[in-house]
Amino acid sequence: MDIEKANLEAVSRMMEARPVVVGMGKALDVIPGMQEDMLLHAGPPITWERASGPMRGAITGALIFEGKAEDEAGAQKLVESGQIKLDPCHHHQSVGPMAGVICPSMSVYILENETHGNKSYSNLNEGYGKVLRYGAYSQEVLDRLRWLEEVLAPVLGEAIVSSKGIDMRALLAESLHMGDEGHNRNKAGSIIFTTKLAPYITKAAPDPETAAEIIRTLGDNALSVLNPVMAACKAMVDAAHDIEGSTIVSVMARNGTDLGIRISGLGERWFTAPVAVPQGLYFPGYTAEDSSGDIGDSTITETAGIGGFAMASAPAIVTFVSGTPKDALNATLEMYEICSAEHKYFTIPPLDFRGTPTGIDIRKVVEKGITPRVNTGIAHKDAGVGQVGAGLVRPPMEMFENALVAFAEQYGF
Amino acid sequence: MDIEKANLEAVSRMMEARPVVVGMGKALDVIPGMQEDMLLHAGPPITWERASGPMRGAITGALIFEGKAEDEAGAQKLVESGQIKLDPCHHHQSVGPMAGVICPSMSVYILENETHGNKSYSNLNEGYGKVLRYGAYSQEVLDRLRWLEEVLAPVLGEAIVSSKGIDMRALLAESLHMGDEGHNRNKAGSIIFTTKLAPYITKAAPDPETAAEIIRTLGDNALSVLNPVMAACKAMVDAAHDIEGSTIVSVMARNGTDLGIRISGLGERWFTAPVAVPQGLYFPGYTAEDSSGDIGDSTITETAGIGGFAMASAPAIVTFVSGTPKDALNATLEMYEICSAEHKYFTIPPLDFRGTPTGIDIRKVVEKGITPRVNTGIAHKDAGVGQVGAGLVRPPMEMFENALVAFAEQYGF
Repeated sequence: MDIEKANLEAVSRMMEARPVVVGMGKALDVIPGMQEDMLLHAGPPITWERASGPMRGAITGALIFEGKAEDEAGAQKLVESGQIKLDPCHHHQSVGPMAGVICPSMSVYILENETHGNKSYSNLNEGYGKVLRYGAYSQEVLDRLRWLEEVLAPVLGEAIVSSKGIDMRALLAESLHMGDEGHNRNKAGSIIFTTKLAPYITKAAPDPETAAEIIRTLGDNALSVLNPVMAACKAMVDAAHDIEGSTIVSVMARNGTDLGIRISGLGERWFTAPVAVPQGLYFPGYTAEDSSGDIGDSTITETAGIGGFAMASAPAIVTFVSGTPKDALNATLEMYEICSAEHKYFTIPPLDFRGTPTGIDIRKVVEKGITPRVNTGIAHKDAGVGQVGAGLVRPPMEMFENALVAFAEQYGF
Repeated sequence: MDIEKANLEAVSRMMEARPVVVGMGKALDVIPGMQEDMLLHAGPPITWERASGPMRGAITGALIFEGKAEDEAGAQKLVESGQIKLDPCHHHQSVGPMAGVICPSMSVYILENETHGNKSYSNLNEGYGKVLRYGAYSQEVLDRLRWLEEVLAPVLGEAIVSSKGIDMRALLAESLHMGDEGHNRNKAGSIIFTTKLAPYITKAAPDPETAAEIIRTLGDNALSVLNPVMAACKAMVDAAHDIEGSTIVSVMARNGTDLGIRISGLGERWFTAPVAVPQGLYFPGYTAEDSSGDIGDSTITETAGIGGFAMASAPAIVTFVSGTPKDALNATLEMYEICSAEHKYFTIPPLDFRGTPTGIDIRKVVEKGITPRVNTGIAHKDAGVGQVGAGLVRPPMEMFENALVAFAEQYGF
């Protein structure tokens, strides 16, 4: 068996994938395997008992949103009794930032990989401040979700269809030349996305005031494109999954308690370990004491060769995640050490347009003792609070070692 | 007399200027000193006889647009007979890219410097391809100008007023963190501008289709913000002009034949010299043989501390103007040698957020033998053709020497 050949195949598929946002739909209607009594969440499988504060908060908020619970105690009862099932987004071709909770009646972006035909999904970005994905579920959070659902989603969905789709690989290639890294900095991508859709939104909206409010909502939120970006990365890595003999990481995701990875050549198995706490900059009034463990499916960006791996493209991000522009450059340079390829379409101007480090090879991670670098938001450890900062984190080495042992066992080395 | 103190005052005024786009109006109605029988143009004063091909083409197009001429021969007659007067944009608080021709019935952006109260003006950007500013004046050029004038301008003007104005210094500070340098690369700035105005455009437009077309026109044109950026720079440098004893350059502009500079401490005098031909990348089918001499008021960006001076912020620009990202970095580093200050608000992430080199000091230019570096578009040398490339150029040293001699004479050194 030729691991190099298998990895080349996996990474080529990852890079040649061309995910296009083609529309929106209700999670229950469009996400494969989604059920009326199910909530999807970030990271590997989790129970209520082991769930972190922000995950419990987001589950609570989602069940209130669905009209199934009234408070955290009610949510806990539904989940612990099995009346509501929790399942990872990743088991359903989906991804969600931070707690990543997607409930049946939520609208989601639908992406189609035009090269390989697979689809992927992610929910709407709620913006900053008190938001469900960080575990907040106050009335303002729910009102906002309702507005997104009832007013924004139908118009945005129609606008996307009229636009004939937004090519996310092209958008990312462009935004990486505009100071984004695609995970924690999506300023350029979000306004490219808004600018492309705004003409269609004007025509899809019931009236000019609604059009204006929707365009402003997308344009003022520097993370509005994060969810479609994550879904695009999911479509890319899914195209690279299940390549016999490949040691490439095809999923890396955290639920606030555990971080889990999957390997292209090792099927549906998760390799998990307890999450670390991110290091970074905290909002006024908060410190590392307040921080939840690392959480969210957004590490799908690093898995696909952007995010922390493309930090050299985004020197201005250090004002948000700490460090210096030199650190940002070094982060990318270090990641070449553990990656299988340089991206064909995502290039870094300050590095003479070198392709981003793409396709984490668990053999290199273990051999060199270098774990992936991840940019991330930081959630408060308690349910109901929200974001308290942003920073950098590395997944534990243990998972990569375990995955490599499993690979050796499965393939008989 | 304390030159250092005078220069500090000039550069402080330049940096503290805060130009805001506050509305639009017809050139004849709003530009100070504009007359019915006058055309404004880029650079220092010029006659028809000495005008370059693209300048003659743009003058011809503008006179056809005004209904005053039918062809180039007719335009020539009107200008040479004195029935139509040519006057530099810079004599009227205005600037225009390339030929920079502004005619009486054209709509212009109105900017107000909120710090010092002075106003500035620039026309609408026509986009790429065959456009008046590059000297093209075919029917499609005129039809486009008519559409901009009749459909876009009234809506955009109303949208700007409803928005309470667009703060151009803030926009530039942000776009410099997004890979723009503000002269030849305005991708980020143009979509920031579009995104901010789109909600107001939806409400100002007569119908959703028109709103969509206007938003698309602004959003698809990566130079749509160039003209307001140039006007913003004009407002900044005007605030720094006429400081007794200052050796700071307050105007640098080319008409395709001559490049002219003005010095803060030397009043309204122009110091001119023949323009150079830019070095750069040509569009398919064109070579340096086809190139007009350096043209346009857009060197106002370098005069205000951005453009070629901020190239380190915009490594991706080298795909357009030639060179490597390292050259872009070096261009900025070199400009610190001839500038009086580092910008307080315009910072460069790859240089650890160092302020852009700001305020060209003619003493340093002459002493160090380093002329300013300018990013520019390249026009075809003949009237009626248009853009043939983009590149880099330096103004001739001679003007700076002459200005320094004049300074010594005036101030009695």
